[in-house]
Parts: sequence; C-alpha cells; structure tokens
Amino acid sequence: MTTPLSSSYAALEADLRARGIDVGETRAAIRALKIETPSWGYAQAGTRFKVFRHPAAARTIQEKLDDAALVHGLTGVCPTVAVHIPWDKTDDWAGVAKYAAERGLALGAVNPNLFQDNEYMLGSLCHPAAAVRKQAMIHMDYCLEIAKTIGSPAISLWLADGTNYPGQDSIRDRRRRLLDCLREYIARMPDGMILLIEYKLFEPAFYHTDLADWGAAFSMAGILGPKAKVLVDTGHHAPGTNIEYIVAWLLALDKLGGFHFNCRNYADDDLIVGSSQPFQLFAIFHELINGGKAGRAAEVAYMLDQSHSIENKIEAILQSVQNVQIAYAKALCVDRQALAEAQQAGDVLGAHRLLTAGFETDVRSLLTSIREEDGRPADPFQAFRASGVAEKLAAERGA
Amino acid sequence: MTTPLSSSYAALEADLRARGIDVGETRAAIRALKIETPSWGYAQAGTRFKVFRHPAAARTIQEKLDDAALVHGLTGVCPTVAVHIPWDKTDDWAGVAKYAAERGLALGAVNPNLFQDNEYMLGSLCHPAAAVRKQAMIHMDYCLEIAKTIGSPAISLWLADGTNYPGQDSIRDRRRRLLDCLREYIARMPDGMILLIEYKLFEPAFYHTDLADWGAAFSMAGILGPKAKVLVDTGHHAPGTNIEYIVAWLLALDKLGGFHFNCRNYADDDLIVGSSQPFQLFAIFHELINGGKAGRAAEVAYMLDQSHSIENKIEAILQSVQNVQIAYAKALCVDRQALAEAQQAGDVLGAHRLLTAGFETDVRSLLTSIREEDGRPADPFQAFRASGVAEKLAAERGA
Amino acid sequence: MTTPLSSSYAALEADLRARGIDVGETRAAIRALKIETPSWGYAQAGTRFKVFRHPAAARTIQEKLDDAALVHGLTGVCPTVAVHIPWDKTDDWAGVAKYAAERGLALGAVNPNLFQDNEYMLGSLCHPAAAVRKQAMIHMDYCLEIAKTIGSPAISLWLADGTNYPGQDSIRDRRRRLLDCLREYIARMPDGMILLIEYKLFEPAFYHTDLADWGAAFSMAGILGPKAKVLVDTGHHAPGTNIEYIVAWLLALDKLGGFHFNCRNYADDDLIVGSSQPFQLFAIFHELINGGKAGRAAEVAYMLDQSHSIENKIEAILQSVQNVQIAYAKALCVDRQALAEAQQAGDVLGAHRLLTAGFETDVRSLLTSIREEDGRPADPFQAFRASGVAEKLAAERGA
Amino acid sequence: MTTPLSSSYAALEADLRARGIDVGETRAAIRALKIETPSWGYAQAGTRFKVFRHPAAARTIQEKLDDAALVHGLTGVCPTVAVHIPWDKTDDWAGVAKYAAERGLALGAVNPNLFQDNEYMLGSLCHPAAAVRKQAMIHMDYCLEIAKTIGSPAISLWLADGTNYPGQDSIRDRRRRLLDCLREYIARMPDGMILLIEYKLFEPAFYHTDLADWGAAFSMAGILGPKAKVLVDTGHHAPGTNIEYIVAWLLALDKLGGFHFNCRNYADDDLIVGSSQPFQLFAIFHELINGGKAGRAAEVAYMLDQSHSIENKIEAILQSVQNVQIAYAKALCVDRQALAEAQQAGDVLGAHRLLTAGFETDVRSLLTSIREEDGRPADPFQAFRASGVAEKLAAERGA
Repeated sequence: MTTPLSSSYAALEADLRARGIDVGETRAAIRALKIETPSWGYAQAGTRFKVFRHPAAARTIQEKLDDAALVHGLTGVCPTVAVHIPWDKTDDWAGVAKYAAERGLALGAVNPNLFQDNEYMLGSLCHPAAAVRKQAMIHMDYCLEIAKTIGSPAISLWLADGTNYPGQDSIRDRRRRLLDCLREYIARMPDGMILLIEYKLFEPAFYHTDLADWGAAFSMAGILGPKAKVLVDTGHHAPGTNIEYIVAWLLALDKLGGFHFNCRNYADDDLIVGSSQPFQLFAIFHELINGGKAGRAAEVAYMLDQSHSIENKIEAILQSVQNVQIAYAKALCVDRQALAEAQQAGDVLGAHRLLTAGFETDVRSLLTSIREEDGRPADPFQAFRASGVAEKLAAERGA
Repeated sequence: MTTPLSSSYAALEADLRARGIDVGETRAAIRALKIETPSWGYAQAGTRFKVFRHPAAARTIQEKLDDAALVHGLTGVCPTVAVHIPWDKTDDWAGVAKYAAERGLALGAVNPNLFQDNEYMLGSLCHPAAAVRKQAMIHMDYCLEIAKTIGSPAISLWLADGTNYPGQDSIRDRRRRLLDCLREYIARMPDGMILLIEYKLFEPAFYHTDLADWGAAFSMAGILGPKAKVLVDTGHHAPGTNIEYIVAWLLALDKLGGFHFNCRNYADDDLIVGSSQPFQLFAIFHELINGGKAGRAAEVAYMLDQSHSIENKIEAILQSVQNVQIAYAKALCVDRQALAEAQQAGDVLGAHRLLTAGFETDVRSLLTSIREEDGRPADPFQAFRASGVAEKLAAERGA
Repeated sequence: MTTPLSSSYAALEADLRARGIDVGETRAAIRALKIETPSWGYAQAGTRFKVFRHPAAARTIQEKLDDAALVHGLTGVCPTVAVHIPWDKTDDWAGVAKYAAERGLALGAVNPNLFQDNEYMLGSLCHPAAAVRKQAMIHMDYCLEIAKTIGSPAISLWLADGTNYPGQDSIRDRRRRLLDCLREYIARMPDGMILLIEYKLFEPAFYHTDLADWGAAFSMAGILGPKAKVLVDTGHHAPGTNIEYIVAWLLALDKLGGFHFNCRNYADDDLIVGSSQPFQLFAIFHELINGGKAGRAAEVAYMLDQSHSIENKIEAILQSVQNVQIAYAKALCVDRQALAEAQQAGDVLGAHRLLTAGFETDVRSLLTSIREEDGRPADPFQAFRASGVAEKLAAERGA
Repeated sequence: MTTPLSSSYAALEADLRARGIDVGETRAAIRALKIETPSWGYAQAGTRFKVFRHPAAARTIQEKLDDAALVHGLTGVCPTVAVHIPWDKTDDWAGVAKYAAERGLALGAVNPNLFQDNEYMLGSLCHPAAAVRKQAMIHMDYCLEIAKTIGSPAISLWLADGTNYPGQDSIRDRRRRLLDCLREYIARMPDGMILLIEYKLFEPAFYHTDLADWGAAFSMAGILGPKAKVLVDTGHHAPGTNIEYIVAWLLALDKLGGFHFNCRNYADDDLIVGSSQPFQLFAIFHELINGGKAGRAAEVAYMLDQSHSIENKIEAILQSVQNVQIAYAKALCVDRQALAEAQQAGDVLGAHRLLTAGFETDVRSLLTSIREEDGRPADPFQAFRASGVAEKLAAERGA
C-alpha cells in the first residue's frame, strides 16, 4: 500500500493557491485540530453476538494510556483521552492523571456508566424507583469528583435509559425525573466544566429512549443553562437525518458541545469514522468552519466513539484520525469567498461545485507534508504496522 | 360491509366498567374531540406523476365548505375548516366566513403558501435575496389580515424552504433569515392568535429543509415566545421516529400547538390517518391524555392534512375522522390508574398489557352508540355512500 | 389486569355470523395454528451493553424444555421447540428428544451457530480461507446429524457473515463461496428435510451481509432446488419494508419456508412479536391466508425468535403466542368473499374497510372461549403469573 | 470556479504508475464508458408542489435531441438518448431517429408510460379490470413497434402500479396479472431486444408497489427468461440498502440489465447522481469492474434518470456525466491485484485502505487530460456556461 508521493504536494499547493486558499492558514488550522481518543477504543469490544478477542487489546487504564500515547506520538493530534467509569477502574485517579501526563497526554471527558449495574434494567436517572435514581446520582457525583481530580473539562453523559414496550413506563414522568436529576447535578458542577448531553434514537432501549434526538437534548440543555451543551454522536440518528444541519443549528444556538465521531450505515454501527460516508464527515466540517468552531477544541470537543470488533484497535484509531483530518482538510480547501458569492447569487450548481471542488481535492499529500515537517511519519497507520508494535503488544498482553 | 351491531355495546360497556373506566366521562370526552378538516382535502390532489381527476371534488372555497358541512353534519365533530392561501381564492373573506357560519362551520387555521410562486424556487423566508423574503412577508401579512377578518385562531406555517444540493446555500445564513422574518412577524400578531410552526424532514427540498425536525421548530418557537407553538405532522419524520415521544416532550415543554394528521409508510405519503399504523395513532392519543390535552381543541388543534389521490375525498375524510375517534376512544379505554401503578412497580409486561388492553378493545359500538344518541348516522361513511350525494356532486361538478 | 369477560363472546359470535364468517371453521383454524418456541428464548439474553440476569431463566436444554412444556401446557399450541447448536449442549440428543417427548413436546428446527467461534471473525461459509469454510461445514454436518437423530424437519440457517468496511472482502467472491458450500450441503440433506435460508439486512456485520434480503435468499434457494426455502425474520428488514408483500411473493413463488416472529421499531430489536406493530402482523397473516398456508405448520414454520432482555422469559413467550393468535384470529375475521368482490370492483375504501373490520374486531373473547373449551386457562399469561411458578423457578435456578 | 490544473496530471500519473495501475488501459476504459441521457431530463420537471418553469427547457423531442447532441458534443460519452412514450410525442419515429442520427446520436431505451392515463388510477398491468390491462398492453405493444422502428435495444419498464391502502387489492392476484401480461409480452419481443424490469419501493403508490425490490424484479426476470433483466434505479431503495451488494449479486446471477442513475438522500429524490453520496457511486462501479461489466454499454446500460427542478437542465446533465466519470475513474484507480491479496489474507483495514486509496485519488486532471486529447473542453459544465447557449435557448424557447 502506497501513500501519495510527497512530490505531488507541489501540484496540490499550486492548485490551492489558484483557488485563492491561504495555504499557510490551512496548514495551521489542520495542526490545530485535536481529536480526543476514547480509552475504551483500545480495549476489547464486540457485538451482542460475539466479542472476538484481540490479543493486543489494552486491559487496564494504564495500557490504554500507553496505546493512546503511541497514537499521539504517531499523529501529534490526539493529546487527550476520554475515560469511562467504571470501565477504567482505579483507586488512584491522581496517579492515572500523572501516568498520562508523563506520556504527554491529558485526561479528557469523564463518561459515567448508567447502564451496567443490575439496578439499571429499567433505567437510571429516569427509573421509576427513587432509590435507583439515587444510586445513579451517586455514580454521577463520583464521576464529578474524578473529573475534578484529573482536571477534566467535561462530564459526557450518554443516558441509556428508555423502554422496550409501549406503556412500560410513562415517557412524560421519565422526562420529569431526568430533569430533576440533572438540575440538581448541574448545580454541583464547578464553573468551567461542561455537561455534554448525548442523544440516541435507540439501543439498548427499543421502543423509546429518554433522550432520543437533538431536540430533546437541546431542550434539556436550554433549561439547564450555559453549563449544559449537546453532544452529537454521528451514529445516533434516524435513517436519512441530515447531521450537518443539526450541527449548523446547534452552533447557531450556541449549544454544540462536541462530537462522538464514528461511521454508521444502519444503526449505531460504531465503525471507523468516514469509512463509508466520507462526504457526510466533510459536510459536517464545512458547517463547523461556517460556525467558526472548527479545530477549536476548547469549545467543541472532537472525540471518537467507536467499537473495533474485527480490526486492530490502534490501527482503527489511526485510520479514524486520518479520516477526520482528510475531511477537515478538504473542507478547508473550499473557496469560501467564491462560495458565499455564488450562494448569494442563487447559483445552485455553481455553489454546489465550489463545495465539491473541496471534497474532490486529494489532500493526502498536504497532510503528509505537515506530518513530515513536524517529524511525524507520513502515514501513521503504515508506520505503526511496520513498527512491529502490534505483534509485541499481542505477545505481552495476549497470554 | 357491516358495522358492529349496536347490541354488542352492552357487552363492551360491561367490560369497561369491569376495568374501572368511567363510561360517562369517556363518552363525554369522545364528544369533546373536534377535528378540523382542511379545505384542500376536498379538492383535486395527486402525486408528481399524475393528478387523477375526481368529478365530485370541490372546486371553490364555497364547494369545499359545502363538503365540510356535509362531513360535520354526518359526524358532529368537524366544526372548523382550515384554509390555504391562495388555494382558497376570494376577494371577500368576510363573506366566506359568513357562508361557513350559515352552514354551522367556522374557519380555522390560515395556511400561507410560500412555495408556489416562481420567485420561491430557492426559498421564501430563507431566500438569499431580500426582495424574495419581502415578497413572502407580504403574503404572510396578507394571511394575517385574513385571519383577523375570519376570526381564525392560528397562522399555520409550513415552510417548504430548503436546498437540493450540498453547498447550494448556507444552512446557517438561512436559519438567520428565517429567524429575522418570524421575529418581525410574531410581533405583528395579535394576542390570542398562535403561530403554528410545522417541520418536515424533506420534500420538496431533498438535501436539507430549513425546518427539518421538532428540534428546529421547538428552538424557533422558544425564541419567538408564547405565541409560537410547534405543529406535528405525523408524516414528516424520519423512518423509525417515535412520534408519541415527541408529543410527550412538546406537551411537557408547553409547546405543542397542534397536529396535521395523516398516515405514512415511507415518506410524506399523506394517506388516511390510521389506515396502516393504527397503533401509532393510539399511542399518540395516549400521550395527549397523559399530558392533559386530549380533546381540548382550544389548546391543541387536531387537523387533518391528507392528499386523497385515488379515493373519494369526502369518504376519505369521513374514514379519517372515524379512525381518529377510534384511536382516541381506545386510549380512553386504558385503565390509567392500574397502568400508573404497574409502571411505578416496574412491571414491564403488566404495564404494557394494560395499555394494549385499551388498544385491543373494539370501540366501534361505543362510537356508534354515541352517534345514535346524538342523532347522527351510526356509520357516517356508509351513510354518505348510501345517500347518493357523491354521484350527485360528480354530476354537478364534473362537467 | 382483567381480560375480556367471556360473556362478551356471544356478541362477538353474532357479529361474526352477521359478517358471513364461519365460526366453526374459524375456531378450527385457530386451534390448528402451532407456534414453535425457541430454546434460547427461555435463557439469559441481552444487548451488547448488558445482559441483565434473570434468576428464573433456564440454564440447560432440559430446563428450556421444562419451560417450553409449561408454555405448551398453558396454551396448547406450542408443541415444538427449536434448538440452537451449540447453545444447547448435550452429548445425548436422543436422550434430549426423549426428554422432550415425555413432556409432550417434539424438537423442531436445528439452528447451526456460525458466528461464535473465534475463527468466524471474518465469516464462516463465506470466509476467504478454505480452512474456516471447512470448519463451518463440519459444524453444519454435525447439525445435520442432530437433526436426523431428533427427527427435526429443518435446518434453519442464519448466516451472520458479512463485512464491516468497503473493500474488506469481495462481495462477489463471498457469494460464490456460500453457493459452493450450500450446494454441497443440500446434496447431503435427506428428502423431507428443509433448509431454511434466513436473510438479514445488517448486524453483526455493518457494511454488508452476505444474505442481506429476500432477493438474495430467494435466488440462492432457487439454485439449490426444492429442499431450500426462505425464512422471513420480521425484524431483519430495512425501514419501510412491506413485509406482507414479501410474504405474498414468496408464497406465490412456493419458496416461503417459515418465520422468525418478533417485533422491531428500529433494527433487529427482537421484541415480543406484535407488541408495537400489531397491524403488520395481522397483514402478514392476511397474506398467509390468501396464499393458503396459514396454520399449516407442516409447510410454513411459525417460529418465535426473540431476545427477552428486561422481562420474564416465559411471560414474554406467552404474550408472544397470544399476540400471534390475536393477529391470526383477526385475519380470519375478514369477510374474504366481500373483500374479493370489492377489490375486483376497484372499490378502494370499501375493500380497505373490509380488511380493517377484521383488525378492529376484538377477538380476545374468541380465543378465551377456545381455550376454555380445551381446558386451558383463559389467559395463559395471567395464569402463569398467578401460579407462582416464576418465583419457584427463580429460587431453584437463581442461586 | 477553477478546475484542477492539467499540469497536476503529471503527478497523478506518476502516483498511479507507482500503484501499479496501467494508465493506458485506464484511459481507454474511461473513454469506453457511455452514458445514456433521458429525453425527459431536458424538459420541465418538478415536485408535486410546483414545477418551476425554466425558459431554456426543451419542449419537443427535437429540442431534447438538440440538447442531447450538445451534451454529447461537449462530453463525447453520451451518444444515445432514452425516450419516453408519450412524453415524446411524434407521428414519425423514423424521422426522429434520422433527426438524432444527423446529430451524431442514436435513440436508446424506450420507456412506456403506464401511469398517466386516467384508467391507470388503480394500476395498469396489475389492474383488477381486464380492460385496463388490455389498454396497458396495447401501449406496451405500441412501444415495441417504436423500438423496432428506431432500432432501440431495450424496453425499459417502470411499473407505477401498487396500492395505497391495506386490502385495497390482492397483492397476490396483482402479481399473477403482471406475470401473465409480461409472459405474453416477452414472447412478442424480437431476439436481441431486452426487457429491463425496474423496481421501486414506493411512489406513486404508498402502501405497496407491485415491483417493490430487486427480489421481485429478479424473480420475475427469472421466470421470463434471458430476454428479461433487472434495472437498478439508485433512488428506489429503502433507507440503508447497500446498492453495491445488489449490483454484485445481479451481476453474478447474470440479470443486471442497467441503471437509472441519480442521487437520493430520502426518497426517490431524483437529484444529480453523485451529488451527495459520491462514495456509494464509486462502490457501485467497483462492483461493476469486479463483475467484468463496467463500461461495456452493450451489456449493462448506464442511464440517467433525474428530475432537475431548480437547476438548468443541461448543466445538471453535464454535472451528472462528470460525476459518473469521476466515480468510475476512481474505481479504476484501485490497485485490484493488491486488493485481492489483502482480501484473501483477511487484512481488514489493509484491504479497505486499498479501496479508499482509489476513492481519495483526485481524478479530475485525468479526465481533463483525456477530454483535451479528444478535443473536448476540459470542463464541459464550464464550457457550456461560458458559451452563452443557455441564455440563447431561454430566449428562443421561453417566450
């Protein structure tokens, strides 16, 4: 497998300049885009039918951080790692934060788990029983303490609550319980920390979920105030949903908090982001640039949330990072001035072609050129493969 | 075709009493549910491939009102008629209102048309050109004058704006234009009049629509204040969307303004409501009862919005009214006290069965009994067929 | 929770006779419909996020058969049990068959498992490596031996093969490998045994599955000849798919082998059949009656395939059986002669109403009456609850 | 709007050679791909809500052929034009064929129209009334005569038949009527002429369509024999359908007859092919190359079928042709030998990356280079815009 010759970059740069793109700014913007990787992306994962064991997969939070450090070393753009409680078990979060820092990493969003205790069978923050809601809140508070300890910027809440059968519980009452819990919680969150509210159409609940779509998450975030924002997981929508539209609106409403990137063809497939819908990812970045938030990680968190079932975990993350960079770089290659003029003039296909001209651009040599300038491998995926590290990790961890 | 014998009502009533349902209240609630029929539902309609001409279809606003009066006479629950400007052309709206009143009807929601002028090819309130937006606002104002003249409670806005191609226009800029227009408009609306904001996933725009989902309509209504509410058209969602969930949330957020009822299997099919998804309609009414708004037409408007392509228009509306009544009556047959207890107890299937027990109930004899008591035909559809009116209208109008 | 009073059956029977329905034949047809329950439906199950442990769930094939016997005892219509290899582990299949027979049961379809061995990560019968395909064929042969031993009428093949990423493997080559395997296999199957070929749009593969839709399964069954038929799992279709259409065509093509019944709102949700899409189930039975195959278990196998995650397993199966019976009974209540006449006359809504008149019929008292006549409990679900058996099983098995 | 500088082609060619791609063969293959344009693509079109009049749109078959000749002149790859009866009205088909030939064109597939006569309200070949089926067959025969007269290779049948309401007609009986008609028809078709059988999930029928999916079309084509093949319209599938899978299977089954290319995000949106799902189009061409049929127009017909509502018709077709060429050229840039090896080795991401390396390739300079070598404009769309022809046509035709 070859990557584009870096010699072709000269032609690309000439082409970009001809389109009026500021190449220096473009290179700076690409460097500024940081992608948070999820600790659980380095661990075993699978479907309800089977978890295929990968011998190289990380088993502890330390091993996950080792792998994340490897990814950051190869790419230079993955300095933070999201953690999941209790998948990442430790009695010493300060020690884990130090472990990360020693590897050039910081810990990112803290993800509570409200779906794996037996008590959560019928819900957590929405559960009809006050005792279960209380148990969930205790876990949420525990996560808050961890977030403070590790200096995390955000609590990232995916609520798995919902029902499987019509009538099983009251949709209205469950919303009220959720609102009561989150109001109480957000009051306890320190300034500067954000509550990211994720939504999901279905799974693991199959009749209704308690935060089913962006309307629900947005309305909740609106009541909760400026500390609450919406998290968009690209795999959590109904078929046909135009995700870039949601991104544009949340940005305009100042409620876009971040992303869980992945790719889906059907349900929440949790595949490598950009692997079969690359244009959609490009269109999302186009809106982020429009909204003035692309690459500014302090305001919008770019996180991966994937499940690597049949592929090497580190390879999957390296490929994901590359795909995000490609999509962003292509979006930066759009001649935005000309686009705005064509749009204003009502030139339907002229404007459309200005956008797709960005997408059609082969930006791989641009990324390669940046990586080489920064002393990174031109192709992190290939460099990882060639390094033999996967085999070494498999031997160490797979016993 | 036979309808259930009214003699079977005795067994039903006994069954309901055994379930602890207050039969008198149930009958009163059914009587209180009013359904607004759309003037355009009585006229020619079709698909992009063909409009099959029905000789009996109404041609003028007066003929539409004649047909609506016929429907109201047969059912007793359709006292208002929504109008569409300029499909309903007249120079004398006061005269039309009088014409309606003489037939026992009132005029309902006023529906502006922002999609059939040539200037609207690229949008109306979202159009890049200020001149087109202004043209659209003039039409909106014209509708407001009509609404005042006829005493309409609501302006019902379906915005057909959107784009067909990525990049064609800026999603973000279009939202801003829409917001500016609606802010200006709502300020001109008198107290007591409501702006119903409809949303639709797609069609006639096929890449993005400017009000695509309830999140968009809700966020807009939130900015616009208490005079703005959301209108749910049951055919305007992505596949798999749980509509009753949206209804429950909008009710809880005090932003549910009304419905456009119809049935869909695929897109915005505009079929007779309840014709192939009867359980969904029942579940929607269950949430309306939960939210305390069922049958209270002053607060939530129950309107039909359908396109009768291959069937007699009046028959289609009579069938629709019957289906709405069946769904509502079934929802009223749920033992809500027992349901709440089972839900609180976490009894998944016990609660589910209490809900479906309502759905399984054959309420046709209940409806028949009410109609007969009110001096209406037991089966309005059959009564219309038997009356020979369709043939008479076809002869008069079909020349 | 109350069930309809059996006294209301008199009114129902009168109504049916008024519609020209032969009540005696209807009762006989309902009694003739047999539903095969799956051994795995009695065991622990869950989602990829969590398997909530139910203390009463069956742990061995013997316990599963005990539960199935209980279900058959309560309903009288579940005399066979599908088995899954190797979920149902035993060294003595003859002994298991005897165990079943002693409880009034027979073993039904044998379901091979080609997705849980580590070797199957990239497929089984479609795997690029001949060695893995051979391993899969050995398992298939093992299932064939079991089927012969236990007198099973069918091998029921759900192929979990597919890919997650475009390019991962050749769709074309994988089809060829599958065809080669199945040709070899069917030649080894004895006369009178059927290969049921199931299809599924996605999961656990998320880019493509090797038997994705009925077109694929049908084309394969066509090449394989009369011993191969198609199995329709009601949860395995793309959103919007009209399943009753597929049933009608497969019947006309003489290739409908059977069903895996369940209910879905989104993906392969594996919920209790009929729980939120009751009209669809009714419409399927309408087509089965049209095709002359309803209730004739020897030719079309009616099987449940569900995953009961948050509810008691036996209750879930009892509810499923009831829902299938309700749908079938409603379909039998259609006045088919009048329907055929209305259809031939092009009476769109007249015909539609004749169909929905069947659906609107409350057939619960009919089912109750049959059960009582047969010495079964009027409401098997309630009888099971009242029996205290669930608590007893939980105590025995939950230690 | 700029197109890639042809100078960048040198870098691309070097890159391709480094990947082991035979550049000469690739250029020949691109030249060999012919795309049939539809006569109706040059005419007025719209949605059910509005047909926006474009002054330059063609009004007669002669004007449509003029426009098609213009497209062929600019692109060199659109030598044939599909016709639609009776949208293309003439008494002199021999004269029309001559008119086309004088402009360097030939007439392509003949498309009967079985949905716009009043008699077809409830269907055509599936209609319950024999008289309507006969009328439809007379039209089909008329099209056959035209096809013989003009030397067309194919009758392309899109059947708009279906129902809107459950029970409206018998799915089973309608299938039988269709089969009887087509059996009779195919017997009358001369050798060498193909019946292309299109399928569509929905619209204009909204409960069921009589040829709903590839399974239906394939099973029908199987009964009808070698003269019948399946036509894949890329907009006619349920959400989530993997179209390249269907293409691969139809090729393997020797039943792929051709394509109607367009792009859809929701329903049958009929947008410019490749405009928002470019990867899907690429994946389809990947399967066509796999199946050995890409670019061989004699065996698989590549046709556009689009509805250009808000854009200039000729521009839309030029953009479509470019998008098809880009997708095909990218698919040709895949290193197929390395891909096959990676697939056989089970290298999931290695194989995936080999495929996407093709997609990431910016092939625009390759296409430009070919066009320039052939004396065509480098960018046909821009050349058309710059020519002022659109304005001239609008002035001539728009009066």
